[in-house]
Amino acid sequence: MQGVILENISTPEELRRLPVSDLPELARELRHYIVDTLATHPGHLASSLGTVELAIALHYVFNTPDDKVVWDVGHQAYAHKILTGRRDQFPTIRTYGGISGFPRMDESPYDAFGTGHSSTSISAALGMATASKLQGNTTRQHIAVIGDGSMTGGEAFEALNNAGVSKANILVILNDNGISIDKAVGGLSRYLVKITSSPEYNRLKEHVWRTAGGDSKNIRGKNIVSRTLAGLKSSLLKNSNFFESLGFRYFGPVDGHDAAQLVEVLTSLKDLKGPKLLHIVTKKGKGMKEAERNPVTYHAPGKYNAETGLQLHSDNSGQPLKYQDVFGHTIIELAERNSRIVGITPAMPTGCSLNMMMAQMPDRVFDVGIAEQHAVTFAAGLAAQGMVPFCNIYSSFMQRAYDQVIHDVALQRLNVVLCLDRAGIVGDDGPTHHGAFDLAYFRIVPNLTICAPMDEHELRDMMYTAQTDNQGPFVIRYPRGLSVHPDWRSEMHALEVGKGRCISEGSDVAVLTIGHIGNEAAKAVGQLRAEGIAVGHYDMRFVKPLDTVLLDEVARRYKAVVTVEDGCLAGGFGSAVLEYYAQSQLASRSGTASPKVIRLGLPDRFVTHGPVAQLHSDCHIDAAGIIEAVRSLMISDQ
Amino acid sequence: MQGVILENISTPEELRRLPVSDLPELARELRHYIVDTLATHPGHLASSLGTVELAIALHYVFNTPDDKVVWDVGHQAYAHKILTGRRDQFPTIRTYGGISGFPRMDESPYDAFGTGHSSTSISAALGMATASKLQGNTTRQHIAVIGDGSMTGGEAFEALNNAGVSKANILVILNDNGISIDKAVGGLSRYLVKITSSPEYNRLKEHVWRTAGGDSKNIRGKNIVSRTLAGLKSSLLKNSNFFESLGFRYFGPVDGHDAAQLVEVLTSLKDLKGPKLLHIVTKKGKGMKEAERNPVTYHAPGKYNAETGLQLHSDNSGQPLKYQDVFGHTIIELAERNSRIVGITPAMPTGCSLNMMMAQMPDRVFDVGIAEQHAVTFAAGLAAQGMVPFCNIYSSFMQRAYDQVIHDVALQRLNVVLCLDRAGIVGDDGPTHHGAFDLAYFRIVPNLTICAPMDEHELRDMMYTAQTDNQGPFVIRYPRGLSVHPDWRSEMHALEVGKGRCISEGSDVAVLTIGHIGNEAAKAVGQLRAEGIAVGHYDMRFVKPLDTVLLDEVARRYKAVVTVEDGCLAGGFGSAVLEYYAQSQLASRSGTASPKVIRLGLPDRFVTHGPVAQLHSDCHIDAAGIIEAVRSLMISDQ
Repeated sequence: MQGVILENISTPEELRRLPVSDLPELARELRHYIVDTLATHPGHLASSLGTVELAIALHYVFNTPDDKVVWDVGHQAYAHKILTGRRDQFPTIRTYGGISGFPRMDESPYDAFGTGHSSTSISAALGMATASKLQGNTTRQHIAVIGDGSMTGGEAFEALNNAGVSKANILVILNDNGISIDKAVGGLSRYLVKITSSPEYNRLKEHVWRTAGGDSKNIRGKNIVSRTLAGLKSSLLKNSNFFESLGFRYFGPVDGHDAAQLVEVLTSLKDLKGPKLLHIVTKKGKGMKEAERNPVTYHAPGKYNAETGLQLHSDNSGQPLKYQDVFGHTIIELAERNSRIVGITPAMPTGCSLNMMMAQMPDRVFDVGIAEQHAVTFAAGLAAQGMVPFCNIYSSFMQRAYDQVIHDVALQRLNVVLCLDRAGIVGDDGPTHHGAFDLAYFRIVPNLTICAPMDEHELRDMMYTAQTDNQGPFVIRYPRGLSVHPDWRSEMHALEVGKGRCISEGSDVAVLTIGHIGNEAAKAVGQLRAEGIAVGHYDMRFVKPLDTVLLDEVARRYKAVVTVEDGCLAGGFGSAVLEYYAQSQLASRSGTASPKVIRLGLPDRFVTHGPVAQLHSDCHIDAAGIIEAVRSLMISDQ
Repeated sequence: MQGVILENISTPEELRRLPVSDLPELARELRHYIVDTLATHPGHLASSLGTVELAIALHYVFNTPDDKVVWDVGHQAYAHKILTGRRDQFPTIRTYGGISGFPRMDESPYDAFGTGHSSTSISAALGMATASKLQGNTTRQHIAVIGDGSMTGGEAFEALNNAGVSKANILVILNDNGISIDKAVGGLSRYLVKITSSPEYNRLKEHVWRTAGGDSKNIRGKNIVSRTLAGLKSSLLKNSNFFESLGFRYFGPVDGHDAAQLVEVLTSLKDLKGPKLLHIVTKKGKGMKEAERNPVTYHAPGKYNAETGLQLHSDNSGQPLKYQDVFGHTIIELAERNSRIVGITPAMPTGCSLNMMMAQMPDRVFDVGIAEQHAVTFAAGLAAQGMVPFCNIYSSFMQRAYDQVIHDVALQRLNVVLCLDRAGIVGDDGPTHHGAFDLAYFRIVPNLTICAPMDEHELRDMMYTAQTDNQGPFVIRYPRGLSVHPDWRSEMHALEVGKGRCISEGSDVAVLTIGHIGNEAAKAVGQLRAEGIAVGHYDMRFVKPLDTVLLDEVARRYKAVVTVEDGCLAGGFGSAVLEYYAQSQLASRSGTASPKVIRLGLPDRFVTHGPVAQLHSDCHIDAAGIIEAVRSLMISDQ
């Protein structure tokens, strides 16, 4: 249901022809369309409901796509997508072949810059503004829309610091809803609450407004930005504001759900050169009771009833638990026995299930904000003093802390346990969020132990092993979603580090797997066995150190090997196997040839969004792909 | 020359027995010892001269090593090293087998946390403070010493934001000298100048001090931190300070060269719980005229005359230019012809020689501060608007921007040219600074073109090629130090992307090299040829895309291959060759065996500091190591 105004808006040009008085109704219709669509086509609901008026006002006031709008993270940009030519495609959002859940430059000229990971928007907008200046374009506007959560990411600060002294024509819109995905944390967040609620601050501000003939409740156009006021404000409040101390001109806070006011304010700011920041206050989930009440749950609620807003819970009885929840339960179990264990998450307590431990042991879990770099060095500091921190970071976000893992953890051999959640293909979120590279980028770092569980019992054993004495840096990667067994509870054992295990023996061909994708191999091996073809299957468990004894045994017993990983082919687990065989061939005096090796994994391109099973199939790492690889070896052998 | 006080100080305990009145003389002696030693044993001079009084005061006031001091970056910690048991080893600093130029946990218990890259200290100290709290230790002090340059790094902000709301017992000492390695830049830096020099700010502060019975010129012990003053100050200046808005209690600015005052202030702050920040103002190069006058040159001046302070310039006539300077000249040459080219550096204009372009085209070079993440996304923003940014970042610092390269540059195929300076072994700076991993961590990222020049003419051709139309993301890595030819000037040509070249033909064994280390291979091949052994040598130029046509030819003509790279063995260039041969063997119906492959490169451990030639030899990637590898293949062939 698109509503009578919305159904006539296919582009921002059409939007701009509406009278301002129609905008609130358009906002209502947009909200309705979003709520209605996402009820059956799951996506990021609450954030997008919070930015409906902002999206309208931006496209109403600015000359997009010539003016550039960068949506930080981008999962709040659904209204933007609907208003910019993708209204009818909106129900395909995040589906295979459909539009992306994030802005993408190759999807629309209105998506000025692709996003997905947080805190990049100010840097990108500053780059664009700088380009315009160098190209002699003095009128183009460059806008970064960034949440208060994303503002805690270090890159955002780096960009503010740089932009503040530039003369670049950049407008940062701080979308302050007090929430990132979980509740926003940290000094900046507390500060924002203060400046939006402190009577003292507001009294001073009122005084400034009044002196300038304005009124903060009803901000009027040019008045806000008149030289007089700006001068007055800056002399009275000089350096008094976090953003002003970095060289920005600060405006706000204003109500982000008052479309007419937003249009007025943005129109005024258009004429003001240099770096400026507009602080708007919005409500995550705005307009949908359930989502307003519980924005964390309704960040990405899955399917729900469009009328009542209530989530539709599928019947999970008898299903295995998610790996995330097994992690959440297991760390509590371990922490109860080992007082040195603490948990760390950069703003993802709910996503990674550390919220369970948070509830039970609030002093021993640290949500450090969207701050992967800090999370890792903070963990290293804890470990330097004898603690055993489990630092849980999504695989693709761990790319943000790569240097810290090398420089602070690995080089100093500190016993930090890095838990890489959402490793491998993640599905609907697509290329920005697939954990494609971790095995390859961590395998090259000295001193790391790297493992991946094939099921939740292995996950528990790996977590158990990681916290035993003197393990040094320990990486455990596991995927998003369901684990394997009906019962996740298992007695935990220490694993021998660097030892794999045989799942089934065979002849001619052995399949070597790492992690959960091994279950696809097990399926493949079972199907082949039913056809009378006996294929060996080995769960290597550790990518580093590699089980070279097992690899030697495999080389002796099989003529060919298929390696399978839910990670990039280049430099990954399969390459580690190749490296070892090449080396052992050189060392061998007997002249035994190494086995042939087919490596299966993610190809050298960014994998699109869609259902995990579909993408695994596209990449030939599902059972069918593994069977095909095994057969090709059998043929080439004949 | 250690001076009469210094020669009796071997540990901080001995230091603490001195009367405060001896500290200025001790500072003088320390400075003298540092200046004297570094004259012939080059190191980081100017930064360490700036922190002499601070190092004395910290160890005088705090109970190190039980109290923890983390020196951000760490190249300013020489006085700290001398005072903590390493006085007599100091002349071995940065030499092979000698002490490190940076703090290292495995070197001394006084080095609470290893550093080298910037902006990690607050995170680490907060981790330690959190550990102490969990362990029930309420008296231990945790101190991060961080420069104003390092404070612009995003991780420092992430840590401030997190620490500000913790109740952790942490003291951040902001060592403000207005200089990182080059002049500090950005909004924060400008802000610090304001608060140390603005009459308005100081008038207000004076008022607060006076009201509280204090006096900012002569701060007296407990007075400063008395509850009264703290209350008064916070009510008058509430949120008025950048750091206070993040939840820190701010003190200062105080003179960082007044040892007695520092002792007094630090003693007072000891009793104050929670996160606090002390702003001290120091002079980089303090006490040595030449260094004070020119702190950028005297950051790491090489050898100089200890009496006059004048640098000793070795006679470079007839020597090739540094790669850095070839880069510096070449980008100007290209930028003169192509108006879309701009230069970007995160705080290293002198180190990477972008300062030349800065002088000539100030509007087209951007020093963004210590902010690698922002540098890369900023570049992506510029490229999204049609510019061709050359973003120059040292290889080991590029680890900081790994996610941005994947997420903002590669995924969007933007024509950003990433110049990785100081790739491979860097020498004296050691493991934190070796550019060991770049080939491996970038090779796995889709859409990147990756190359490395064997000499400066190739560097110029690669730079030329990178800025031609539609190249997409382009990585050029080259080492620190001298290039190859007497004359770096060459006519630039576009290279065919993904094509290597034959340096010399041979039989039986081919040496495949990437980048400057190829010159060692050329030496090796020459020596072998003199012995009548004809070995082929191929300069592959591109790691991605690999020249598979050339690899096929090599496979047909040679029985064995040696790959050589100045980068980690795991996952690197040699592994790319293995991957290709494994794959082509599978595809081949003819049954031709792949050549045997020996891969030479950096081993799976962190390589220590020392002369580049020594370290290359240790890693067997010098001519001798290559000859040895070739011979081993000849023997195994017989």
